[in-house]
Amino acid sequence: MEQGLFTANNVWMMVCTALVFFMHTGFAFLEIGLTRQKNTINILFKNIFIITVGLLLYYLIGFNLMYPGEFNGYIGSIVPGIEAPANGMTPEYADGGYTWWTDFLFQGMFAATAATIVSGAVAERMKIGPFMIFTVIYVGLIYPIAGSWKWGGGFLDELGFYDFAGSTLVHSVGGWAALVAVWLLGPRIGKFKEGKPQAIPGHNIPLATAGVLILWLGWFGFNGGSVLSADPELTSLTLVTTCLAAAAGGVVAAALSFIMYKNLDLTMFLNGILGGLVGITAGADVMTPNSAIIIGAIAGALIVFAVSFVDALKLDDPVGAIAVHLICGIWGTLAVGIFSTNPDHTLVAQLIGIACYAAICISSSFLIFFVLKKTVGIRVSEKEELEGLDAHEHGMDAYPDFRLNEH
Amino acid sequence: MEQGLFTANNVWMMVCTALVFFMHTGFAFLEIGLTRQKNTINILFKNIFIITVGLLLYYLIGFNLMYPGEFNGYIGSIVPGIEAPANGMTPEYADGGYTWWTDFLFQGMFAATAATIVSGAVAERMKIGPFMIFTVIYVGLIYPIAGSWKWGGGFLDELGFYDFAGSTLVHSVGGWAALVAVWLLGPRIGKFKEGKPQAIPGHNIPLATAGVLILWLGWFGFNGGSVLSADPELTSLTLVTTCLAAAAGGVVAAALSFIMYKNLDLTMFLNGILGGLVGITAGADVMTPNSAIIIGAIAGALIVFAVSFVDALKLDDPVGAIAVHLICGIWGTLAVGIFSTNPDHTLVAQLIGIACYAAICISSSFLIFFVLKKTVGIRVSEKEELEGLDAHEHGMDAYPDFRLNEH
Amino acid sequence: MEQGLFTANNVWMMVCTALVFFMHTGFAFLEIGLTRQKNTINILFKNIFIITVGLLLYYLIGFNLMYPGEFNGYIGSIVPGIEAPANGMTPEYADGGYTWWTDFLFQGMFAATAATIVSGAVAERMKIGPFMIFTVIYVGLIYPIAGSWKWGGGFLDELGFYDFAGSTLVHSVGGWAALVAVWLLGPRIGKFKEGKPQAIPGHNIPLATAGVLILWLGWFGFNGGSVLSADPELTSLTLVTTCLAAAAGGVVAAALSFIMYKNLDLTMFLNGILGGLVGITAGADVMTPNSAIIIGAIAGALIVFAVSFVDALKLDDPVGAIAVHLICGIWGTLAVGIFSTNPDHTLVAQLIGIACYAAICISSSFLIFFVLKKTVGIRVSEKEELEGLDAHEHGMDAYPDFRLNEH
Repeated sequence: MEQGLFTANNVWMMVCTALVFFMHTGFAFLEIGLTRQKNTINILFKNIFIITVGLLLYYLIGFNLMYPGEFNGYIGSIVPGIEAPANGMTPEYADGGYTWWTDFLFQGMFAATAATIVSGAVAERMKIGPFMIFTVIYVGLIYPIAGSWKWGGGFLDELGFYDFAGSTLVHSVGGWAALVAVWLLGPRIGKFKEGKPQAIPGHNIPLATAGVLILWLGWFGFNGGSVLSADPELTSLTLVTTCLAAAAGGVVAAALSFIMYKNLDLTMFLNGILGGLVGITAGADVMTPNSAIIIGAIAGALIVFAVSFVDALKLDDPVGAIAVHLICGIWGTLAVGIFSTNPDHTLVAQLIGIACYAAICISSSFLIFFVLKKTVGIRVSEKEELEGLDAHEHGMDAYPDFRLNEH
Repeated sequence: MEQGLFTANNVWMMVCTALVFFMHTGFAFLEIGLTRQKNTINILFKNIFIITVGLLLYYLIGFNLMYPGEFNGYIGSIVPGIEAPANGMTPEYADGGYTWWTDFLFQGMFAATAATIVSGAVAERMKIGPFMIFTVIYVGLIYPIAGSWKWGGGFLDELGFYDFAGSTLVHSVGGWAALVAVWLLGPRIGKFKEGKPQAIPGHNIPLATAGVLILWLGWFGFNGGSVLSADPELTSLTLVTTCLAAAAGGVVAAALSFIMYKNLDLTMFLNGILGGLVGITAGADVMTPNSAIIIGAIAGALIVFAVSFVDALKLDDPVGAIAVHLICGIWGTLAVGIFSTNPDHTLVAQLIGIACYAAICISSSFLIFFVLKKTVGIRVSEKEELEGLDAHEHGMDAYPDFRLNEH
Repeated sequence: MEQGLFTANNVWMMVCTALVFFMHTGFAFLEIGLTRQKNTINILFKNIFIITVGLLLYYLIGFNLMYPGEFNGYIGSIVPGIEAPANGMTPEYADGGYTWWTDFLFQGMFAATAATIVSGAVAERMKIGPFMIFTVIYVGLIYPIAGSWKWGGGFLDELGFYDFAGSTLVHSVGGWAALVAVWLLGPRIGKFKEGKPQAIPGHNIPLATAGVLILWLGWFGFNGGSVLSADPELTSLTLVTTCLAAAAGGVVAAALSFIMYKNLDLTMFLNGILGGLVGITAGADVMTPNSAIIIGAIAGALIVFAVSFVDALKLDDPVGAIAVHLICGIWGTLAVGIFSTNPDHTLVAQLIGIACYAAICISSSFLIFFVLKKTVGIRVSEKEELEGLDAHEHGMDAYPDFRLNEH
């Protein structure tokens, strides 16, 4: 490949890597913004833990497990470090025209995301120790094994399943675990009174809003980088479909919640944007802009109904992670089978893929959380929950100079 | 064009698009930071509305209205979607060596900015419904029609008017509407006591400061991307002039306000930076670094005087939008006629351009706001204003865990 | 050079410039987050001052003083503006394939960093006037002269000293001055009671955390841009070593402080990340990923001990700047002599370099601060310190709508 083109490809992939890294700031802001101040340090600690440990695990285990080159299609092997697959390429250059270093780092930034999704769902009541154990196993083993089935060239790839940037491989993988965790943990004290869900308002909406805008920005890299080159037409189409779906998701969620609840609900607007982003992620490179708007709009509507539905199931998901990442992740994966411009993509293959990921994620996350629950326990004491995890788990306040309300 | 060069151009334009998108986080932080906590949700909602709806409108109407290809020079036609002009180019590739998708998205990110400028000026007292109607019309129709006069190859382009990245086409277009809106709305309760302006301090200066730094960062893309390629010399010169003007604007505004008011005023420092940025925007690619410093310095001085002048006119502009975007936008446009290294640029052409934009913006925004005022009304009730728009328009608090002062 | 490659190089360097600029937002967030709310405006003002004045000074003095082309190896001369060295290159294109404009701006963004490091260390008690004087002299003269010794091709470059992106040239240069300033200033009132250090908790940990994440993001540009081209292998290796060192630093600091103090300490986690980043900076391009993890891990451990050590010396460094930037800066510079893949790098040359920078930085910063202390004074009055610098130096509150605790 020509040196200028190779360099431009690699520059784009490095920029996208930086943008995906920045998403962790967005997740942190969103999660603390939508929860109470007394658990802020705990959430920030978890997020910092996920990024740092996630990256080290991906170096030690994940990268070669997820991209094993030749393998049986179901599970690769654990090879620490950054190895090129045994296909004759030099270790410096990955297929598609960027370096192995770039490839590792871009994929490593993705890896931590799945655990971050769970972090938000279990906020304000889960013990940090067991959460860290879950993170190590899920990010270190489950995510790369599941990922290898499609992106590593495994059996789902052979089967024609398509997931461009991870509606399923990243977002549903996190979302299924979030669902299992929320179910096993039970709701926060005070979330349901006489069976009715109570609003527990988030303590810092400016940071939550900034979090969503930073996540949207990060999605330029999440989807744009998933082209795995700087191919001008594909990367820029991807950015267009991504942004239009986000916009449509937000507008529909805001409009629908206004119609249903007579309120201009900022949180619903924000979650609608995230739903649109998750929804377009599976097929951002194979959609027309018009299809992207439809996919985003449906995702936005799904958010409004899913948030109520999760409440009706007596599940307590403080940040709406199940609605955003699981429901819209499934929708986006199905949407490929409906709207893709590539005739090879079929609804059947998409359904099989969704089912396989549901199977591995539900079973593995249930196993991990169940064992943790029966051994060390996964939930903090009532006293700790009421007084906040910051004081008990970290001995530190997020805002010591401010006078705060107790609730 | 060589594939490596084309790809590098497109990468740069996509990076710039992401940076301009990030400016909306900067605007949101700046606006909420400089206003009171009780209107925070309202401002964030408006900003999120502007980005999402602005982008969809630009797809449905704006893009082809603003860049119509062959047209009468005054007004193009409404063609939904992303169409290439009828000049024989394939739809994939825009002139200058990047794709139509990139072109659309970069210009779409610009479009929302004009309404954002108005949002800050009308903050804390305007009804959200009429603001949304204004936004739809102004971003959907007025901005692209006015923009087509120069950037779409219309009559002002023929005439030799120059506005590189939008001191007039973006900032003054927003600024004129801000002026009209502020005048029709009237000042916030308590802003003027016995004819004297009262300081109404902003509630979150760290976020306001971060907002300005994020806007400065975004200006790397706003101006750097307006080269419409990654031409190394032009893009990097543009970044240098942009940053030097910002620095000079800030330093002069801070120094001058210290001399005049004996106070190291952070807000003036920040608005001076923004003034410098707006000032250099019309000619960032045709200035020497020395000229950029002079332009920025004069913009910084203008800010200090303009803030007082707006106060003296009994206009209430909570975030200084008129001073920053209108006054410095005009100054920057004139500065091209004085300092440009391109001898084709004349002060006369610049003055004609400024006058034409004043005409369309004042008349159209007056018409919209006046009709809204006489029909649905544009101002919230006194009770609502005193208690805050968040509680009344959105039923939500920005900081529910914090104890707050009433004022 | 081929136009596509040249353009791609220049794009990467501009992106890196933007990222390094964004680090100033990170520094600002970190510094205000780790200090008390009553000094927030003061810290923000200093940070904005440093960026704007630093950039103008670098244009007027610094750039040509630091990169003088042919010179005696110890001190260049003051030439305002952006001049190409007298080596026959056209002024438009810097060596390595990017433009002089880009070169200036990238290096200019670095220049301000040294003073920012000092800003955090002297927070909450230093008069702003003398700090501004110090900044002008240190950023305007000391930083570029010291920098010319290595990066300008001076005597330390001849001698084989290596500092890729500035563990010593940037971080220790700031760190030595921070040490001198902290010593001459004395601790904040209440920091030591009966000889024992007291925790003075930072007032906004979400912003401090975001600051560290933004700094990590900025380091993609700080180290990635120090390759001075977009060379695919070197830039991407650099990003990998940078991120792995950051992750290892954070994890080790958190684990060690948990073992020592039985607490999951978020602040230590954050400073461990910064320590890892500073540690890898001197040799990010000449390390294997495994070495990077070791270097980061040792930096993380150093942070935990250094914070206690600084306390034991009765030095009051509110943000841990000495531990992060000086101690880890020295460690990172030494690490090049131990772990570099380039056999030309020796521990002896590294030690000589460290000693030379210690000499110029300690002596010059002592001279500046000592003269200021004996003339205008460097410390605010006890009343001003207790009531906060915001009210006294700036007549402004950071959070006027919030009810605050006095302490």
